[in-house]
Amino acid sequence: MEVRAVTVGNVTVGAGRPVLIAGPCSVENLEMIRAVAAAAVKSGVSILRGGSFKPRTSPYSFQGLGIEGLQMLDAARREFSIPVVSEVMSIDQIEPSLEMVDMIQVGARNMHNFPLLSALGRTDRPILLKRGFMATIEEWLMAAEYIVKEGNDRVVLCERGIRTFEPWTRNTLDISAVPLARMLGGYPVIVDPCHASGRRDLLEPLAMAGLAAGADGIMLEVHPEPEKALSDGGQSLSIPELTLMAGRLLNWMDTIPQYEKDCEPGMDGG
Amino acid sequence: MEVRAVTVGNVTVGAGRPVLIAGPCSVENLEMIRAVAAAAVKSGVSILRGGSFKPRTSPYSFQGLGIEGLQMLDAARREFSIPVVSEVMSIDQIEPSLEMVDMIQVGARNMHNFPLLSALGRTDRPILLKRGFMATIEEWLMAAEYIVKEGNDRVVLCERGIRTFEPWTRNTLDISAVPLARMLGGYPVIVDPCHASGRRDLLEPLAMAGLAAGADGIMLEVHPEPEKALSDGGQSLSIPELTLMAGRLLNWMDTIPQYEKDCEPGMDGG
Amino acid sequence: MEVRAVTVGNVTVGAGRPVLIAGPCSVENLEMIRAVAAAAVKSGVSILRGGSFKPRTSPYSFQGLGIEGLQMLDAARREFSIPVVSEVMSIDQIEPSLEMVDMIQVGARNMHNFPLLSALGRTDRPILLKRGFMATIEEWLMAAEYIVKEGNDRVVLCERGIRTFEPWTRNTLDISAVPLARMLGGYPVIVDPCHASGRRDLLEPLAMAGLAAGADGIMLEVHPEPEKALSDGGQSLSIPELTLMAGRLLNWMDTIPQYEKDCEPGMDGG
Amino acid sequence: MEVRAVTVGNVTVGAGRPVLIAGPCSVENLEMIRAVAAAAVKSGVSILRGGSFKPRTSPYSFQGLGIEGLQMLDAARREFSIPVVSEVMSIDQIEPSLEMVDMIQVGARNMHNFPLLSALGRTDRPILLKRGFMATIEEWLMAAEYIVKEGNDRVVLCERGIRTFEPWTRNTLDISAVPLARMLGGYPVIVDPCHASGRRDLLEPLAMAGLAAGADGIMLEVHPEPEKALSDGGQSLSIPELTLMAGRLLNWMDTIPQYEKDCEPGMDGG
Repeated sequence: MEVRAVTVGNVTVGAGRPVLIAGPCSVENLEMIRAVAAAAVKSGVSILRGGSFKPRTSPYSFQGLGIEGLQMLDAARREFSIPVVSEVMSIDQIEPSLEMVDMIQVGARNMHNFPLLSALGRTDRPILLKRGFMATIEEWLMAAEYIVKEGNDRVVLCERGIRTFEPWTRNTLDISAVPLARMLGGYPVIVDPCHASGRRDLLEPLAMAGLAAGADGIMLEVHPEPEKALSDGGQSLSIPELTLMAGRLLNWMDTIPQYEKDCEPGMDGG
Repeated sequence: MEVRAVTVGNVTVGAGRPVLIAGPCSVENLEMIRAVAAAAVKSGVSILRGGSFKPRTSPYSFQGLGIEGLQMLDAARREFSIPVVSEVMSIDQIEPSLEMVDMIQVGARNMHNFPLLSALGRTDRPILLKRGFMATIEEWLMAAEYIVKEGNDRVVLCERGIRTFEPWTRNTLDISAVPLARMLGGYPVIVDPCHASGRRDLLEPLAMAGLAAGADGIMLEVHPEPEKALSDGGQSLSIPELTLMAGRLLNWMDTIPQYEKDCEPGMDGG
Repeated sequence: MEVRAVTVGNVTVGAGRPVLIAGPCSVENLEMIRAVAAAAVKSGVSILRGGSFKPRTSPYSFQGLGIEGLQMLDAARREFSIPVVSEVMSIDQIEPSLEMVDMIQVGARNMHNFPLLSALGRTDRPILLKRGFMATIEEWLMAAEYIVKEGNDRVVLCERGIRTFEPWTRNTLDISAVPLARMLGGYPVIVDPCHASGRRDLLEPLAMAGLAAGADGIMLEVHPEPEKALSDGGQSLSIPELTLMAGRLLNWMDTIPQYEKDCEPGMDGG
Repeated sequence: MEVRAVTVGNVTVGAGRPVLIAGPCSVENLEMIRAVAAAAVKSGVSILRGGSFKPRTSPYSFQGLGIEGLQMLDAARREFSIPVVSEVMSIDQIEPSLEMVDMIQVGARNMHNFPLLSALGRTDRPILLKRGFMATIEEWLMAAEYIVKEGNDRVVLCERGIRTFEPWTRNTLDISAVPLARMLGGYPVIVDPCHASGRRDLLEPLAMAGLAAGADGIMLEVHPEPEKALSDGGQSLSIPELTLMAGRLLNWMDTIPQYEKDCEPGMDGG
């Protein structure tokens, strides 16, 4: 199946050259999102990410800035002319997001939130659908189908690791899911090495592996001061690290040959 | 930690350029192993693989040709001047293997067979230690330690996928294990996309992902007639497919930049 | 920690004698829910279950009868004087449910739907919180905390199996989670052997194992004609099977000794 | 399928009343194994366990006393007239074990060690085959088949937990495997709650759950001074704890009804 390209603002995902998406886990204040946006644009990043509604395991952890965070994100996208992606966790957060973000993210914990998926299917906005850390590839494609069925086929998938018994990484990046979801679902697939590994020292090898496996983009977490981040500091790049890594990836990605892939479900599971 | 290179016959694994290892799952007869060896050498493959003692889930499945298979493998290596790797499943199989194979493989099901590992540690032969499909990276490095403790530090690791809930692939290739095992263990790491995926259509993207993540080599299953293979036909390449894929991989692998990796165990698992 | 009992209508969960909860996966029509309710009451079942908002993997599967199904459930509870539990999948489904159901269920796929949990925390209704099929026990207790934090401490947990590599059961019942969640969280815990196994032939041994491990109740799926069920037929009991099994379980459960349990997190994970 | 009873010395496993097996993880010295044997006999334990060849993740951990440990075990069995079970890790350990132990254990890490299984199939001794911690039930039954195929059908299975993502227990006891392996394999099944949970506070609820699910016996680790044990202290009972728990379990187990189970592989996995 051929991958259907999806446009996000002035950027096309899934048509040839992979894109870089980067930004902080959470928008913490205007100054930090402006600093990250400036660095992102300068480094060749195409889409700015930033969380403002944050699903956290504990109700006592920082929950994000909400609408106020979206406004900061909106200010940064206008100032730096870069499209933004941000997560919603419930149906009532869609309306305000439509005004301020270019692409709406569904997080891993909401991949099975079917009413939310259907509501997003009734918008005209591109959707970044993260794979649940416990979801099979088939369930992930079915979740996308909840969006498409309502009329919105602008879906981009994001592989961010699945839960296994291995304790040295936060999750296990399922690299096989990249070619399988692209070819069996026809959606562009982004790789998120930060949530997949939870380790800064694995971000570059996993980003490269993702691109080599055919990913349509890489999503990275960046923070001006990772050690002071309110969430996910241990897996975030600093701004100089982002600049360095983005430069290498953008330089190298054109060498990756485009083979014809031909996945078929069948046989031994698949 | 720096990776210690291991020599196998005239080939060096873990020093710069990645190597290709290829051959049939099982040596079935002399003619087929000669055909594969000829094609392997012509395609740029550095080491020939071929199983002769086969661990099979069912006692009623084909169990390999045993010593006779090793003799065929030995004939092929002499005729085509290519080093060979083959598996042993028990201590008594080591002695005959020493005469006929250059590198001894420990299969995933025997990664925790500590008496076998210790006995291999008392040989002078390079060992290819596959990761158990249920073993953590730490347990895998500890298994290598059983070999090294007895005096043999010529260990090469092979990541071949771990068991997860995902049914569309036979196992889940743990791509993060490649940089982690290299950097924390100091061993060269080979990627086996055939057992990891069980699907011919994923072999090339997974091989590329492995190389991009820093693997020191790729191991592939090849069969003159995959559809007639006595084992693992669905994940084997035909000879023309091997030639094509080996050519592409050998051509592309030099473009992969060598970044400095610096993994540390610690923090959030790791 | 001592378990805090929760009342559901005239039934107390978590205080001494375990309760049986039974009913169809989905309310399909008035006649079937009346037939099941009648049989449930006669068999000693304390709470009637019936789904009306159904989260299904595929958007093309039967999605439940919605409000109309709740009205049928409400008719049955009035006619047979039995409290009912039913699932909500989104915040807007809470309001109509409050009028028609005694206990509100959060399904496994919504265990991480934090806005939904918080909204339920602002009602006065007992909540049956199913464990996500890939959630740790700690995450499950944290999800309960989202409800409790808003002022509603009437939470009952339900263990329904986790996802593993084992293919002979739909999920793997994590029997250890029963004593751990009771003692570390202080919530009553119900065991759902139907979703845990997906096999009718395992329901009785798993229900017995659950009770032996200290469960405060067992939840069963029943259908007048399991082979014609619109969902989950393969794991549903027929009405005569329910009567037989409920009789045995109710008869046997009083023989189970109440030992003092004393779980502490610590040491080797825990 | 009906369960075939297996005799171990003067004890029958799989015919009616469940048996208790208890003893230290490792035989550490003669005095401690004598103390445990005396307490075991007095507490109603039918079979004494004690490891002497120990498979340990690290080559630097205590590896057991070997032959000397077997001699201590043999002395204890003669003095207290109780049959003993002990593990072998390699073919050369079988011969000395035959003289000194009544039942030979294959550990979880060796469930896939096919040459070892075949060699044990050529003895006349009952075999206790532990499930690999990442083996499917089908693979476990196939491993038993390696023993039976060589002529020895005196196989007892032991469920000891599988590896999952849950960190609060060392493994996850797969309680469903008890009825499935009994009914589909026809072998008696023992439950080992110590390795399954790694927590002393879960031993009694898990033992009870195992019995309720139909287990033919429970295997427990006991140590005169658990806090000083050379291995597995955190999951071992003290002698007074063993006496108390054995008394309760033996007293309660007769109340468990024997239902007719009828498992069939098929349908949704199974």
